[in-house]
Amino acid sequence: MADPSDRSFSEPDEEIMQATYRALREHGYADLTIKRIADEYGKSTAAIHYYYDTKEDLLVAFLDFLLERFVDSIHEVETTDPEQRLNLLLDELLVAPRENRDLSVALLEMRSQAPYKEAFSERFQQNDEYIRYMIKAVINHGIDEGVFEDVDAEHVTRALMTIVDGARTRSVVLGEGELETARQAAAEYADAMLR
Amino acid sequence: MADPSDRSFSEPDEEIMQATYRALREHGYADLTIKRIADEYGKSTAAIHYYYDTKEDLLVAFLDFLLERFVDSIHEVETTDPEQRLNLLLDELLVAPRENRDLSVALLEMRSQAPYKEAFSERFQQNDEYIRYMIKAVINHGIDEGVFEDVDAEHVTRALMTIVDGARTRSVVLGEGELETARQAAAEYADAMLR
Repeated sequence: MADPSDRSFSEPDEEIMQATYRALREHGYADLTIKRIADEYGKSTAAIHYYYDTKEDLLVAFLDFLLERFVDSIHEVETTDPEQRLNLLLDELLVAPRENRDLSVALLEMRSQAPYKEAFSERFQQNDEYIRYMIKAVINHGIDEGVFEDVDAEHVTRALMTIVDGARTRSVVLGEGELETARQAAAEYADAMLR
Repeated sequence: MADPSDRSFSEPDEEIMQATYRALREHGYADLTIKRIADEYGKSTAAIHYYYDTKEDLLVAFLDFLLERFVDSIHEVETTDPEQRLNLLLDELLVAPRENRDLSVALLEMRSQAPYKEAFSERFQQNDEYIRYMIKAVINHGIDEGVFEDVDAEHVTRALMTIVDGARTRSVVLGEGELETARQAAAEYADAMLR
């Protein structure tokens, strides 16, 4: 799997991604059209089709873009302390989305379409793999340093991502308090397994 | 909130629900029509409209029906041992759905529409409340009996439901192995918090 930090969005790409971001937040996934993205972009639909053949292609690129932003936010952090890094990853996954309810709504719609759209399915799979790779690296680092118990890092990582995805779904379906519950549950689970 | 076991589906209702179940599994939510449900029912669309005005009304009744089936499957069990009952609840929530991938796919689509359809939102909210009520009762029972630690039962219940909903989403988007991981994670979390 390619490191998303190897991929960088060119300037028009970046602008189209920002326009997609705004259009998704405003209209949701089902009502998203290239026309609406073009309106946010301030150019014609042809200007978007120059880069992306279909709405699906554009949305797959948008999922890359979200992963890249996530990875950037993690790379900015300087600490190498495993406990701090794990907390930071969980904060990025469970605290940051609180400001982005509309985006979470659109992403859940896209997730629900994964069984019907192979390109979405692949991208969600890859993004999940990449985030698990980051979490697992931190857990293994902590094990090597002797600050974490010698656990099955793959399993603990998947369990934490299950809590993250539960929070993502519950915050959309049931309300935002769910992210806070999940952040606490993730900390409790990590504590119980790793210390 | 009404006890779903107070509500019983009449015979034609029950048949329409079974037809809805089959139609949802076959066509998914987006492509579901009253016509397709009527085909499974073996009667005209008018026969369905006699009971349900709209597809949305019918699907809300279908969510009731699913909750009722779930509650029935729990009521059948005779044990009052808190540990066994908690395990059983988690099995029903995380093991049983393995045979029902198509239904899980359709339910995730419906969940993703909750922000747009108030009737879905209310019903998912009520069903979640009811299941949390059952889990919480078991945890409180265990605390009273002295077999569980004196925890915040409300929080532990919500955390367990976060794992359940994470598994539901991940099994649709990423594959069925996720339910097994989640069942183990739920056991580990319950163990860490309650014992």
